[in-house]
Amino acid sequence: MQGRFISFEGPDGAGKTSVISAIQEWLTQKYGKQAVLLTREPGGNRISEQIRQILFDDHNTNMDARTEALLFAAARRQHIVEDIEPALQAGKFVLSDRYVDSSVAYQGGGRHLGADDIWELNQFAIHGLLPDLTIYLDIPSELGLERISKHRQNQVNRLDREKLRFHQDVRNAYLTLAQRHQKRIQLIDASQPLPTVINMVQEMIQNRFNLE
Amino acid sequence: MQGRFISFEGPDGAGKTSVISAIQEWLTQKYGKQAVLLTREPGGNRISEQIRQILFDDHNTNMDARTEALLFAAARRQHIVEDIEPALQAGKFVLSDRYVDSSVAYQGGGRHLGADDIWELNQFAIHGLLPDLTIYLDIPSELGLERISKHRQNQVNRLDREKLRFHQDVRNAYLTLAQRHQKRIQLIDASQPLPTVINMVQEMIQNRFNLE
Repeated sequence: MQGRFISFEGPDGAGKTSVISAIQEWLTQKYGKQAVLLTREPGGNRISEQIRQILFDDHNTNMDARTEALLFAAARRQHIVEDIEPALQAGKFVLSDRYVDSSVAYQGGGRHLGADDIWELNQFAIHGLLPDLTIYLDIPSELGLERISKHRQNQVNRLDREKLRFHQDVRNAYLTLAQRHQKRIQLIDASQPLPTVINMVQEMIQNRFNLE
Repeated sequence: MQGRFISFEGPDGAGKTSVISAIQEWLTQKYGKQAVLLTREPGGNRISEQIRQILFDDHNTNMDARTEALLFAAARRQHIVEDIEPALQAGKFVLSDRYVDSSVAYQGGGRHLGADDIWELNQFAIHGLLPDLTIYLDIPSELGLERISKHRQNQVNRLDREKLRFHQDVRNAYLTLAQRHQKRIQLIDASQPLPTVINMVQEMIQNRFNLE
């Protein structure tokens, strides 16, 4: 049996965590706990978590943007080999909080390393494994930032401390990706009420995989 | 003033450490301590040393070869930005124990990821910074392994525990690189006595940079 690989993309503040959690619950009720793997990037296993610690270490303020992109790609590769591929081979739904599009948007767009170069770099890391479906939660950058500052005041990390311009560049890169990969990436207006967004995502998953 | 960037390549057991140390001493006597930076990969600064720890962590036995290649490239990038480029801008001689050719030889050749793919990946990391001169200490794989097992019995790490075949693949990749980059890479027969090797390296450096 072959699993289904679904990645969730979008800026912080778009409601990504709530949406994934609702989808996990919905799929678990339909198919059982063993049928769903919820995972996130960067992380998931010992090596990827070690890489995550370097990335989010507040003392590493002088990290070069290319170093950052290479570390995200390294964590992604190990995440694929240890977590995603085994779950897909076991026939599971894999729900990944971020995947390759995040690198293109954040390092390519936000950090101005170039979307094409970051896409190329990540081809080495993913070695052909693209999601069957990518849900992109789109939201105006001002609204996203407003939601972050409301809900996460006590857990702001290095990558959060970026300006509005950065978030706009990230969004523009996401929008370009969504246009280039129209079949894989489904854009959802995440400024709508959360229950509406969740309903739309459920319908997309149902349609894409012909679920009952 | 513009510095000079010299990398030293070759398998463990070729005498690389002794040669670099002698060259450092020689250049320091000629130009003073401030004129020479001796550094090694992976490492050199906080972030690169953190990456080094992941790479040489004996518990990380299940590290994927692509993850390894990406981590070496990440450590290299940060090493360039924090250590090599500032020293070159200060006009120093930079002596680097390993650089981009090590990745091509070990991950491309030894781990069979393909020399061209690893070269391409590292273009993202080095962003144009190739050494002015690369000294490649060539040695038959059997002799290199024999020397390692004599001198380093108590500090063998994960990457050392590889078979003869691996070392032969690494050597072949190095030899191909030396042919492709004939101007940059100077091959030296490191099975000769150490003083002979050191003399030859000194002459090469003198000629390349027109030193007195």
